[in-house]
Amino acid sequence: MALLPASTCRRLRFIFQTLIKYLHGFVNETDLTTDEWMAAIQFLTRVGQTCTPLRQEMILLSDVLGVSALVDSLNNPVEGDATENTVLGPFYTDDTVHIANGEGIASEGKGDYMYVEGQVLTTEGGPIPGAIIDTWESDSDGFYDTQYSNRSHPDCRGRLRSADDGSFGFRAIVPVAYPIPGDGPVGELLLTMNRHNMRPSHLHMMVEAPGYHKLVTAFYPEGCKFIQSDSVFGVKKSLVVKLEQIDDDDEARKRGFPVGASFKLMRLKIVMLTNEQFKYYRAKNAKSKETV
Amino acid sequence: MALLPASTCRRLRFIFQTLIKYLHGFVNETDLTTDEWMAAIQFLTRVGQTCTPLRQEMILLSDVLGVSALVDSLNNPVEGDATENTVLGPFYTDDTVHIANGEGIASEGKGDYMYVEGQVLTTEGGPIPGAIIDTWESDSDGFYDTQYSNRSHPDCRGRLRSADDGSFGFRAIVPVAYPIPGDGPVGELLLTMNRHNMRPSHLHMMVEAPGYHKLVTAFYPEGCKFIQSDSVFGVKKSLVVKLEQIDDDDEARKRGFPVGASFKLMRLKIVMLTNEQFKYYRAKNAKSKETV
Repeated sequence: MALLPASTCRRLRFIFQTLIKYLHGFVNETDLTTDEWMAAIQFLTRVGQTCTPLRQEMILLSDVLGVSALVDSLNNPVEGDATENTVLGPFYTDDTVHIANGEGIASEGKGDYMYVEGQVLTTEGGPIPGAIIDTWESDSDGFYDTQYSNRSHPDCRGRLRSADDGSFGFRAIVPVAYPIPGDGPVGELLLTMNRHNMRPSHLHMMVEAPGYHKLVTAFYPEGCKFIQSDSVFGVKKSLVVKLEQIDDDDEARKRGFPVGASFKLMRLKIVMLTNEQFKYYRAKNAKSKETV
Repeated sequence: MALLPASTCRRLRFIFQTLIKYLHGFVNETDLTTDEWMAAIQFLTRVGQTCTPLRQEMILLSDVLGVSALVDSLNNPVEGDATENTVLGPFYTDDTVHIANGEGIASEGKGDYMYVEGQVLTTEGGPIPGAIIDTWESDSDGFYDTQYSNRSHPDCRGRLRSADDGSFGFRAIVPVAYPIPGDGPVGELLLTMNRHNMRPSHLHMMVEAPGYHKLVTAFYPEGCKFIQSDSVFGVKKSLVVKLEQIDDDDEARKRGFPVGASFKLMRLKIVMLTNEQFKYYRAKNAKSKETV
């Protein structure tokens, strides 16, 4: 099996030479003791052993050290008003529900009502029809459906397609801030580092359309107290959105909420790069001559 | 539980700041792709999951990247003719056999005869009596006893004490070169890197005596073809020893070998630092002001 995807010998050599240089640099600069090294070995071992098909503690470690956010930034250059990428997180799953535009992703009682509506657009402002939009969020207790051991079906997640004019809309719930899993070695690490383990409230979204670069992002309602100190460094200024409070029976009915219900409205503009645009900007931003 | 032993807040902060600096430096310099990062995450996860109470693949990874050897060197300064430390390796176990001086550690048929004899000494050349000497080696097939799933008792390992004049001696077998475990992710890594996975032949030794700094070392018979390319970077020049060929009935009989047997003789001089000497040299060699 290939340890590294699509890698040439030259690239591989470069990566390992660089890895060894930086690893040894770290050990030298900290003058790491044998006990500290052994603690690190045992810690990494436990991180690996905490992983299951539904839990990826090694990604979580990468997340809290800011490595995931850095890799994501390097690989997804910001250009013009194209929607920024951010970290995928450990809670995406392909086991989701297909819904039509205007339907809901969350079952009743999972949280306060929110309606998400927007348009998928090109950088020139034209509509992108038929884009596949995957979205997922935690419930109001801060848990994703996959975190429940008795999960029988997807909840608070769904997949829909943008309409001919690029528009989409769905009922969801107001996101809440929640802690990343604190019962494993990464949770212990944060405690040891005197860091909290909260993520600001957010709604995940992954958008794909033929000819366009796949977008992995999330939207963060403004005002959350953890927005400046996200434990996984996922927040970007352009991804912070304002939620509108809607107290209007007609608007609620139009969107399929119960009569008399008020709800929050999240309006989104999703701007995608074509594959050609993406390749061009990625090459322009490449830091290394040895980049694949 | 403490993630880091005996660490102050200040030390901890320094270690993590430095870790993050070097990790991000590596990712930046290689301009790591998302696919490469994901391959690394999956690789590290598999390394953790390959570990069992009898197999430590994460240490093996540290070994083949030269990190274990570097940590060992930093923590065990070379001074005068004190015996040099080297990597512990993954095959030490406390489950061993206590023997008297002159007895054997290997059962019959495990390999060619070798007798090990030497003296444990201070840096001034005085004897260190009662030093506890732990020793272990692979059999002539290149496997340690702990690598056999049907292991019922320790073999090719033993524990003895130096006599009043610091001397010790025991029957063993001639060490052979052997591959480090190649059936796990670290084996795949070496293949990918086009590196062999052999260790030159060696005999492990760990020596402890009250008031002296514990020595973890190994001795490498000269002439092994892998001595210049040890896959875990454990060889040091001062630890390369000459084996003498002994074809003398009296010598064989004296050491408990069968009449007519010829054997190799490994002569060792083991020089230990006192705890005070060790502390002094370690502080003198410290690279970092933040060292514990």
